[in-house]
Amino acid sequence: MGEARTLADVGEFGLIARVTADLPANAGVLLGPGDDAAVVATPSGSVVISTDVLVEGRHFRRDWSTALEIGRRAAAASLADIAAMGARPSAVVVAFAAPADLPAAWAIACTSGLRAEVEAIGAALVGGDVTSADAVMITVTAIGDLEGRPAVVRSGARAGDVVAVAGRLGWAAAGLAVLSRGFRSPRRLVDAHRVPEPPYALGPAAAIAGATAMIDVSDGLIADARHIAVASQVVLAIDSAALAVPDEIQAAASAYSLDPREWMLTGGDDHALLATFAAGVELPPGFTAIGEVLEVQAPGAGVSVDGHFVTVAGGHEHFRTS
Amino acid sequence: MGEARTLADVGEFGLIARVTADLPANAGVLLGPGDDAAVVATPSGSVVISTDVLVEGRHFRRDWSTALEIGRRAAAASLADIAAMGARPSAVVVAFAAPADLPAAWAIACTSGLRAEVEAIGAALVGGDVTSADAVMITVTAIGDLEGRPAVVRSGARAGDVVAVAGRLGWAAAGLAVLSRGFRSPRRLVDAHRVPEPPYALGPAAAIAGATAMIDVSDGLIADARHIAVASQVVLAIDSAALAVPDEIQAAASAYSLDPREWMLTGGDDHALLATFAAGVELPPGFTAIGEVLEVQAPGAGVSVDGHFVTVAGGHEHFRTS
Repeated sequence: MGEARTLADVGEFGLIARVTADLPANAGVLLGPGDDAAVVATPSGSVVISTDVLVEGRHFRRDWSTALEIGRRAAAASLADIAAMGARPSAVVVAFAAPADLPAAWAIACTSGLRAEVEAIGAALVGGDVTSADAVMITVTAIGDLEGRPAVVRSGARAGDVVAVAGRLGWAAAGLAVLSRGFRSPRRLVDAHRVPEPPYALGPAAAIAGATAMIDVSDGLIADARHIAVASQVVLAIDSAALAVPDEIQAAASAYSLDPREWMLTGGDDHALLATFAAGVELPPGFTAIGEVLEVQAPGAGVSVDGHFVTVAGGHEHFRTS
Repeated sequence: MGEARTLADVGEFGLIARVTADLPANAGVLLGPGDDAAVVATPSGSVVISTDVLVEGRHFRRDWSTALEIGRRAAAASLADIAAMGARPSAVVVAFAAPADLPAAWAIACTSGLRAEVEAIGAALVGGDVTSADAVMITVTAIGDLEGRPAVVRSGARAGDVVAVAGRLGWAAAGLAVLSRGFRSPRRLVDAHRVPEPPYALGPAAAIAGATAMIDVSDGLIADARHIAVASQVVLAIDSAALAVPDEIQAAASAYSLDPREWMLTGGDDHALLATFAAGVELPPGFTAIGEVLEVQAPGAGVSVDGHFVTVAGGHEHFRTS
């Protein structure tokens, strides 16, 4: 047949056949795509599972990012959640909804990006569902293995612990600000918005080092630190001077007369890992101490920055218009 | 606060808090909702996983079904896939996308329906994601446990096997036909379209009895039989006289001057289980023999009904307009 042009031309099963072509061998995949369900090994007797949906117009724009970038980003959001439990991602399934007139090449490139992100860390695409819808919507569900370790939850932070972060902060927010103003550079910031670089391997590393609590920074450092604080009933006291401002962020902030730390404290979507460790523990390479955990006190569990309790939301909540 | 009206009023976290309130204890759930990911026990060392998306306007209409029914149906589609592998469903995660002006009561009722379907068979809702979108879209990912048995795949049918089915055929199609003509009764047919009743427990029962292949009938008996036939490189020969036509289906078909077996052979969405068993095996209670497996011959692997090879698609494929 000639070169197909749209999803309607290649059809549901044609798209699935292209997406699942040449899947690499993976010892953890006991049964791959093509049946009612896939079967994945869970050697330690449990499975970690998380789901994440990206909606066109809300989470991405087809004119701001390539299909490949959007696919990588969709995978990253779910894989980072698995890493934040201290687990190793093993497999993903994807539900892909799109208009019938979407170019087939876009759908194939998007799933190629998803596969690239997944396969780069040794995990596998094992199944999915494809349907028509008015807008592109990508739901990625990731599973992972704890390799015998307990999960690192949000509720384990204790007064006296060190607060540490690994990965980028503020990069995606700065890139989004650049794009929102109609620019396409600085390229590294724009790329950071388009494709996050979560420090996946540092999730299990933090768990091995004894992290007492951990979360994936998707809503912003303050907002996600608050999730740990509330779950643990403590205060996470962040020292903003400990946040080294990268040159790219500093330059962009100066150009827009903004405080670069604003992006680093409230910008989401970089999928950094925020964790707490008992005082005296040697932090795994890649983590930087940015504060300490304090006993809860008036006005309650939450986050302070440079000694000031932060009362605003400082994070993104869907549906809310404020 | 007063009675909230829309998703925008209750917000993402408010909705999640309501949906996850009063989750029953479940020994297989090692960590429930509220963290970056959930943790579910997989005692037999592997996990079965499948994802399914329902889109408003494509898979359901809010004026044809209640929110509770749509939630149950969304769960059923994924749970039936797990059962069709011979596995016991253990947990689901749900990604819920909806307009900000959707009544909050609708979202809560939908997830209540989802929970009802999941919890009725001993599985658990363990997590999810909520976001805004122009239409309601519900992606359910289910996982399950094989309890030490091998998965029952599509490719295991062998010439000489018996073809058998458990659960309803044609009910959802008949109900859809009734609704499409503007009627709301016969109620049992309409209800069958709104909420399927997959014979979940018969999936593991078929596996224990030695089923050689199995599939969940979601696209139609012929279409799904063809999936087994192609994967196994055999012919599934169906004897339509073996399909007992229920009175309700007969009455509706007569009213519309249709052949009731047309609905039973091509209607999807009832999530019956179609399986093959070696000749002489005692079928598990609930399964009825409807044909036999033959060696592949010209024109190739596929399905025959009453001795006639069926060449048409006979099933639904997304994006295709034919």
